[in-house]
Amino acid sequence: MHAALTDPGLDTLALVRGDLAAVEEELRRGAECGIEAVTTIGRHLQSSGGKRIRAALVLLAARQAECPEGPRVRLAAIVEMIHAATLIHDDIIDDAATRRGRPSANAQWGNARSVLAGDWLYMQSFRLALGERSFAILDALIALTQAMVEGELLQLEMQRRVVSAAQHRDLMERKTARLFTVASQLGAMAAGRDAPWIERLGKFGHHLGQAFQMVDDLLDCDGKQEAVGKPVGNDLREGKMTLPVIYAHESADEAGRAVIEQVLMGDDSAWPAVQTLVAASGALERARRESREQAEMALAALAPMPASEWKAALERLPALVIARDR
Amino acid sequence: MHAALTDPGLDTLALVRGDLAAVEEELRRGAECGIEAVTTIGRHLQSSGGKRIRAALVLLAARQAECPEGPRVRLAAIVEMIHAATLIHDDIIDDAATRRGRPSANAQWGNARSVLAGDWLYMQSFRLALGERSFAILDALIALTQAMVEGELLQLEMQRRVVSAAQHRDLMERKTARLFTVASQLGAMAAGRDAPWIERLGKFGHHLGQAFQMVDDLLDCDGKQEAVGKPVGNDLREGKMTLPVIYAHESADEAGRAVIEQVLMGDDSAWPAVQTLVAASGALERARRESREQAEMALAALAPMPASEWKAALERLPALVIARDR
Repeated sequence: MHAALTDPGLDTLALVRGDLAAVEEELRRGAECGIEAVTTIGRHLQSSGGKRIRAALVLLAARQAECPEGPRVRLAAIVEMIHAATLIHDDIIDDAATRRGRPSANAQWGNARSVLAGDWLYMQSFRLALGERSFAILDALIALTQAMVEGELLQLEMQRRVVSAAQHRDLMERKTARLFTVASQLGAMAAGRDAPWIERLGKFGHHLGQAFQMVDDLLDCDGKQEAVGKPVGNDLREGKMTLPVIYAHESADEAGRAVIEQVLMGDDSAWPAVQTLVAASGALERARRESREQAEMALAALAPMPASEWKAALERLPALVIARDR
Repeated sequence: MHAALTDPGLDTLALVRGDLAAVEEELRRGAECGIEAVTTIGRHLQSSGGKRIRAALVLLAARQAECPEGPRVRLAAIVEMIHAATLIHDDIIDDAATRRGRPSANAQWGNARSVLAGDWLYMQSFRLALGERSFAILDALIALTQAMVEGELLQLEMQRRVVSAAQHRDLMERKTARLFTVASQLGAMAAGRDAPWIERLGKFGHHLGQAFQMVDDLLDCDGKQEAVGKPVGNDLREGKMTLPVIYAHESADEAGRAVIEQVLMGDDSAWPAVQTLVAASGALERARRESREQAEMALAALAPMPASEWKAALERLPALVIARDR
């Protein structure tokens, strides 16, 4: 059930095993509101599990900042709820049939319930956050969710269009990295740490998130469908250019660009040709190198922090993110 | 453009004309985020206007509580934004083609943009609210939006089912009256008024909201389509029982109940028969009487408050709500 806890590659998370169990309990209780639809979708999200990498990030960074158990567990649950709410609404937008290899919420319950379940999870996460009585935390969470929604809107505007690497980076910052940034900072905010602490942890989260997103892009180009849980090449077919595809497009000749744009416009049949083109162009290596650079920048951000077992665990995260195959 | 300002029946709102113009300006600025989709939907909401009765309620109650201009204008804009966000998401849920006699947001821009535009408006309203640096205000707004979303979820669960008057009352409390309650309280919260003040204004708003919703139900049964902006009987056809229909169903014989349930299940053809049945049953008079009772309870809640031109204006609102034809 909890992929993060059984995956040998993520053994480093054993350090927060107790906390993660408490987060699951918080999530379970959080979705109890006496309304069937919410409990059902809450259960679906729990059993579908996900990697809980965001919760683990909150927990490890919070322990490094010496944030007490109560707030750090709640903050981790809040981040997972916000993440879940965005996934539910994203699935409506993408009209996605599956999520992590299982039927998506909207495929199972329809758009109406999914719109409201996402709304409910947003409100529930803010309500939990309000309990911390910290304007800094609320400012961060509201700005975060707004940036994520804006990222989705920008992505819609860019759908089926050729985008530049810079546009893509901005989009990924909003859609993925910002959540990692804030997840890394919340515990330090709750513990009343000063601005340099919060900035440093935020920088770590930002680069970790960029690395995470780059690996996502790489997996969409040459991952294993069984591991990833969705068909390879899905993003491009849905009209979204990933980083390797952008690099391949940049360096391709006219015929190469045409074949990429063919899939970008939704024509599935040209995908194998795109895959070959991307592999031959060196775009995968370039994206892989950049993801490693982001991982190194994440490590560098941590360097000045006081040594601890939590710092050591945080330092293992970038390598785990780079090595993941799903 | 601003129905509230030109309607002679709402002349009492002239008192807050300046404030309402400032609210429109706040709404206009609020939807400027550099993302085309948000600006577009923001513009649509502004030009479609609505009655701005919620904004006027915030403003009048805030002035009675001696809340300064800055916060009261922002709080009124926040309430209109939350209202707009729920309308946009409700229209997706109902798959509504029109809103106030014009194409609905989802009909114009599709579900994807509408989901995100609603999300964005929620976040923007919370962000504005955060600026007030009041946990009481944030608690009230988050609890409110969560209750409204729960109301929508409950309504989905009850769709195409026979509901009792008590179930309907609970639903309308969540879907309509709660927003009126909080709208009446926000200014007093910002002005630092004590609990009895806030409670009294909340009670006023609650009963005003219940009266407002009852009139909505009545208009759906015997309003004029040209005034209401949607076909009469729409709620029942969409599987939602209104108060007069519930009362008529309660007192009807088996054949009468069957004809109501026929429309409840989506069969349009029986609507004229339902209209005749509701009119003959005395259900309209009963619902009208109850709406007047709610209006009187709203007035009673205000009675102990200090006299002022704002109190006098608030006291005129229940009669205006009862008299409205759209």
